[in-house]
Amino acid sequence: MIPCQVITSRKNEIIKTAARLRDSASFRREQNAFLAEGARLCADAADSGLLIRAVFYTERAGEKYASYLDRIFPKAEQVNQIADSVAELLGDTRQPQGVFCTAELPKRAAASGIEKNGCYLALEEIQDPSNLGAVLRTAEALGVSGVVLAGSCCDPYGAKALRAGMGAVFRLPLYYEENLALCVRRLRGQNFFTAAAVPTEDALPITGVSFPPAVLLAVGNEGAGLSRQAVAACDARVTIPMLGRAESLNAASSAAILMWEIMRTRGRLE
Amino acid sequence: MIPCQVITSRKNEIIKTAARLRDSASFRREQNAFLAEGARLCADAADSGLLIRAVFYTERAGEKYASYLDRIFPKAEQVNQIADSVAELLGDTRQPQGVFCTAELPKRAAASGIEKNGCYLALEEIQDPSNLGAVLRTAEALGVSGVVLAGSCCDPYGAKALRAGMGAVFRLPLYYEENLALCVRRLRGQNFFTAAAVPTEDALPITGVSFPPAVLLAVGNEGAGLSRQAVAACDARVTIPMLGRAESLNAASSAAILMWEIMRTRGRLE
Repeated sequence: MIPCQVITSRKNEIIKTAARLRDSASFRREQNAFLAEGARLCADAADSGLLIRAVFYTERAGEKYASYLDRIFPKAEQVNQIADSVAELLGDTRQPQGVFCTAELPKRAAASGIEKNGCYLALEEIQDPSNLGAVLRTAEALGVSGVVLAGSCCDPYGAKALRAGMGAVFRLPLYYEENLALCVRRLRGQNFFTAAAVPTEDALPITGVSFPPAVLLAVGNEGAGLSRQAVAACDARVTIPMLGRAESLNAASSAAILMWEIMRTRGRLE
Repeated sequence: MIPCQVITSRKNEIIKTAARLRDSASFRREQNAFLAEGARLCADAADSGLLIRAVFYTERAGEKYASYLDRIFPKAEQVNQIADSVAELLGDTRQPQGVFCTAELPKRAAASGIEKNGCYLALEEIQDPSNLGAVLRTAEALGVSGVVLAGSCCDPYGAKALRAGMGAVFRLPLYYEENLALCVRRLRGQNFFTAAAVPTEDALPITGVSFPPAVLLAVGNEGAGLSRQAVAACDARVTIPMLGRAESLNAASSAAILMWEIMRTRGRLE
């Protein structure tokens, strides 16, 4: 593949735009695009059918990651070779691989669009992008049907969330919802069993719950947990039984164990 | 409690030393001490019986966190009130609570000291301090007997690991080991069942393993997984069954699910 152009200046407008897409969630919304870093992540984005506006690669990456780039090039509107210094500017990691792409954001789906039965996870006000990425990665790996991002969660298309998510964001259905309590009530109306994850001892131990085919599991913010309204809207409060003196788990670890229990007891993970 | 002194200068030697303890693992080893931030974490350190060399608190924190400080003061060799600007210098978080302490590191226990049966987790070459902290927090919460840090893991007494660990490091037995494979062989000799966590489909699904009372579960580095030698030394390779296209989980999420399964199937988490 012959690049459209070779970019050597860190002040190139295309590069400046790409760097802003990495750093600013509001700029991503405005431009309806995001920046992905890494050969595999970019190839995952291309495979998922997203429109790839531009791909960027260094000369060395062109050789080292040829098999990944071959998956990206045919789908890219613009192909740019970049100097190493430009890759350092675009990179969010210490040793960038030298492969980046800008891609169009997928259409935001509203949680009201959830129709099929399945196991859904709802995250309320998750603030840490690495936590969010890790949760999406686990959700996809365990076969969760989709994830609802409720309230003002951090952006799954930011650099840290993308890196921690390992491409799960491109394969896992995501839904957006302003108000988790409303979403819970709507799904209860569709015969979903709705469970609020809480760290209190008087909640149902997760080991004692038998989950029906349609489940929404709600997990709250790292510091404050779920909103009172969201907890009140759910059918049940569930908890991970604990033995130590710790009073709660990290949001990502907690979500991992809860999703695991729901999916395991369906007999689908064997 | 009347402070020994009020520190208003960011250039005060005690403060400069405390800040270095936060930032440098080698300085922590040299001084045999670490810096803890946050009222609760400092109180947890004091409760655990560690020698508290000095406590630092702002005037506002003195009122707001009085109940925590009351647990720390009697155990502290030195009590220092600090100006807000000094708290900002010491703080690793955006909005520091204004409570810090320096404490002596506990004696490093060697993994060869593991004698009692129980469920132990071994981490090899874990690099991300937030991951390490989250794993320790989960291990403590689920009642794991102890954690082996093998190879060159990051320091559990660094600022990020302490924050993510929520004080688990003060309550959970930690053991150090240069070479995980040697540690595995030693524990096999003590009739431990040793399991290597791997992300490959030909390993035993964790849902199909029945764990005896003495277990060592080995979990590897975020990027590279376990060393070949460590895997080869173990009785079995175990894996988390997955449904999505993801090929592996985040190290902390993976460790959480594996520890959960081991502890759950002992019937201790109900």
